[in-house]
Amino acid sequence: MRASATLGEISGRLGGELIGDASTGIDAVGPLDSATPSTIAFLANPLYEKQLAASQAGCVIVAPAFREAAAIRGAAIVTPDPYLYFARLTQWWAERTRPAPLPGIHPTALVDPGAEVAADASIGAFAVIEAGAAIGAGVTIGAHAFVGRDCVLGAGTRLGPRVTVMFETTLGERCFVQCGAVLGGDGFGFAPTAGRWEKIEQLGRVRLGDDVEIGANSCIDRGATGDTVIGDGVKIDNLVQIGHNVRIGAHTAIAGCVGVAGSTTIGAHCMLGGGVGISGHISIADHVVVTAATQVTRSIAKAGVYSGLFPFDDNASWEKNAATLRNLHALRERVRALEKKQS
Amino acid sequence: MRASATLGEISGRLGGELIGDASTGIDAVGPLDSATPSTIAFLANPLYEKQLAASQAGCVIVAPAFREAAAIRGAAIVTPDPYLYFARLTQWWAERTRPAPLPGIHPTALVDPGAEVAADASIGAFAVIEAGAAIGAGVTIGAHAFVGRDCVLGAGTRLGPRVTVMFETTLGERCFVQCGAVLGGDGFGFAPTAGRWEKIEQLGRVRLGDDVEIGANSCIDRGATGDTVIGDGVKIDNLVQIGHNVRIGAHTAIAGCVGVAGSTTIGAHCMLGGGVGISGHISIADHVVVTAATQVTRSIAKAGVYSGLFPFDDNASWEKNAATLRNLHALRERVRALEKKQS
Amino acid sequence: MRASATLGEISGRLGGELIGDASTGIDAVGPLDSATPSTIAFLANPLYEKQLAASQAGCVIVAPAFREAAAIRGAAIVTPDPYLYFARLTQWWAERTRPAPLPGIHPTALVDPGAEVAADASIGAFAVIEAGAAIGAGVTIGAHAFVGRDCVLGAGTRLGPRVTVMFETTLGERCFVQCGAVLGGDGFGFAPTAGRWEKIEQLGRVRLGDDVEIGANSCIDRGATGDTVIGDGVKIDNLVQIGHNVRIGAHTAIAGCVGVAGSTTIGAHCMLGGGVGISGHISIADHVVVTAATQVTRSIAKAGVYSGLFPFDDNASWEKNAATLRNLHALRERVRALEKKQS
Repeated sequence: MRASATLGEISGRLGGELIGDASTGIDAVGPLDSATPSTIAFLANPLYEKQLAASQAGCVIVAPAFREAAAIRGAAIVTPDPYLYFARLTQWWAERTRPAPLPGIHPTALVDPGAEVAADASIGAFAVIEAGAAIGAGVTIGAHAFVGRDCVLGAGTRLGPRVTVMFETTLGERCFVQCGAVLGGDGFGFAPTAGRWEKIEQLGRVRLGDDVEIGANSCIDRGATGDTVIGDGVKIDNLVQIGHNVRIGAHTAIAGCVGVAGSTTIGAHCMLGGGVGISGHISIADHVVVTAATQVTRSIAKAGVYSGLFPFDDNASWEKNAATLRNLHALRERVRALEKKQS
Repeated sequence: MRASATLGEISGRLGGELIGDASTGIDAVGPLDSATPSTIAFLANPLYEKQLAASQAGCVIVAPAFREAAAIRGAAIVTPDPYLYFARLTQWWAERTRPAPLPGIHPTALVDPGAEVAADASIGAFAVIEAGAAIGAGVTIGAHAFVGRDCVLGAGTRLGPRVTVMFETTLGERCFVQCGAVLGGDGFGFAPTAGRWEKIEQLGRVRLGDDVEIGANSCIDRGATGDTVIGDGVKIDNLVQIGHNVRIGAHTAIAGCVGVAGSTTIGAHCMLGGGVGISGHISIADHVVVTAATQVTRSIAKAGVYSGLFPFDDNASWEKNAATLRNLHALRERVRALEKKQS
Repeated sequence: MRASATLGEISGRLGGELIGDASTGIDAVGPLDSATPSTIAFLANPLYEKQLAASQAGCVIVAPAFREAAAIRGAAIVTPDPYLYFARLTQWWAERTRPAPLPGIHPTALVDPGAEVAADASIGAFAVIEAGAAIGAGVTIGAHAFVGRDCVLGAGTRLGPRVTVMFETTLGERCFVQCGAVLGGDGFGFAPTAGRWEKIEQLGRVRLGDDVEIGANSCIDRGATGDTVIGDGVKIDNLVQIGHNVRIGAHTAIAGCVGVAGSTTIGAHCMLGGGVGISGHISIADHVVVTAATQVTRSIAKAGVYSGLFPFDDNASWEKNAATLRNLHALRERVRALEKKQS
């Protein structure tokens, strides 16, 4: 479904100072470099400034600092935070170009008579809702999704196709869980006994706050005893593993392929880069940024940026450095010996 | 579903020496630090000893070494292995609080007439069982699960919702496969030819022993030729990738986000930490422990603990160390030169 | 389903020089080391040469260099590229041993009247095809698969069970998407605002070329604006995450557990080893090989092999080296001081 809007409609709805002809028509929101005259684009990252002059975009959303540079080339919307403006524009655009889900229960869906489903909720084809589940107002549940017994989905929450929400999991309002994510699977808990592993049944639950997003094929394990808790506004990308009894503070963002081991607490407003690993039973303060692929093996008590990643290189250089690294301790001893001799 | 039990019932069933009033009622199994007077908790890790005195738990499961410390504060069950006791308690608790699956085939499930399904097996909604599959006694198959042709599921095995078991895969008895796991997908095999990749059809199978657990959204690839074999009692966490023709020995435990490349053999009683990677075509001895995020790039012939992870630090320190690391080989040459001069 | 063939049939169909009795019967394609007299095996990697003499295989596919060694032990097929020969043999074998999917729409599948489905396409049980989707000739769609509105699947493309293809995604011809993969989920895009995250609706699409393979439970995110583009012949293994607006050139191969962050461009004919991570907004040239677990944090302009991985060791050695590494910069300063003094 295509949409179109005039610049006047856009700035009328979303604000900003419009420079240029309000009647200009736009039919796409797109990147600067491949924009056409009917595209509205944005410049948020100064790294892309050089694309501005060359862009064919019909209109560019810019910060006040780029007002002149943008106006020289054509229409512009000037706003203090172009990235946020762009975010709101994408939301409005999506609303207008995507069909709203039909309210009601698809005839092929199986809703247990013991479940409560709001009248305006939308339950997709072949979805299964078990007894005791409570599905709030305006909830959307995709095809092939599974909502186990006694789960609670707050108003406005959306589950993509084939999301699995295991029993007793609770989601706040306006959450969005993407395709294939699993909430409330068993945590990894076994007691060793005589060379074998004895299963620890996972008796806790998963609880999500409001406005949480969980990416495709990510997994949030239920608590062993006690719960796994994801705070309000937390955003989790694809293929992320959150172990049992983890607690994540509000508005923390976690990029793809991250693993957080069990019983760890992560503060609010943290950012974990792609591929980060966090050990179990540790604690990370608020406002901690961990850069991509870093393995956090002990608690972090102070806000700040943390890193730990082997720098890549051409293979031959890496091999030489890695070989030396394997004897790094011996190298330090040699330096110590030299220092002794010299002193 | 809530359960309750008296301490007398618990110790009567699971053993241990009960200190305190056998008629005390318990309605939750929980962690020491958030326990209430109706919670039974345990102390297995001495790291948590300081939580013991302060805990509000109605009863604490402890080892003989903590008998005094536990008895001072109230009721206790003393047992040589509190963690194992706790595991068995969770099993008993789960049995009592979770509804048993209904035996029989859900009316919406599709079971090919050429499949054999034990009379007491439970087949969930919208499940698909293809021809030639053999579903053993007491097997539970979740909603939206798929069992391909000629698969064998041993007695007591459970598949969570939307597990996929591709054709010819065999599972032993009492296995548990969690949501979204894929057993028997194609391994990654291609022959290069003139700048393109020619598919190697994966003709082998996946075979799981008894008592194997596979985590949510994990993947076990079928063999190229010959089989991928997972030994008895192996426990695999979420989002783990096991390549084609891998063999894993009995009672090995593999934490989340691990990847094992094709044709590698891992011994029995090994433990792989979260995020570990294992190269293809190598061999790991029995009783090897690999700590989290280590990349194992050659065979390990000897039991022991192996590690290899860039230590994380605040970003500024890491940058300085990483930059030096990129010239580590040159630094070694400089030390060598100093040694020469000095000698 | 078992198959059998004579050596004459095999070499008649696939070529090569047959040494030995053309009437010898073969009933399995297998590895050298566990072959029986009715197995046909191959030797492509000289590392496995020592298995040749001892193998019980009824026939071995070898390169001309191994003609003598193979002929001494029995029947052989000599061909310039034994691995490619083996690949084609597996394809022929699979064709003969696996039932072809039934053309037509399974009675339980839901195909929107506004979707176009080729007459010979095979749509599995409980599959959902939304309006506007175009399903090409000979396409196979597995059970529980989901194809969103306005998707296009080119001729001969196959989706495994419970693959999800979100709206507007296009796949070329002869693609193969394995179980649980998600194409066209939302990319991870949020604008920060006052300590919260504002969703950037992902308005772009995913476009796959011809002959693309995507592994089980892998995720390819749709573009934010503009598209995520996977070139012809690209092969992607299991549990791989491809971020929004990534572009991957033709015939690149990506092993399991790789993560590619958003807006990165990867060239043609590249190979990424298992567990590799690629940062966002960078560019990788054609013919780049990145070895396993390497984190690529900046653009690579030149073909070649790149690495960066902390070498593993026994835990005690690793701890000593890692501790020294944390002070590596200081060690360099000490070496510099020694050099100054000495000069």
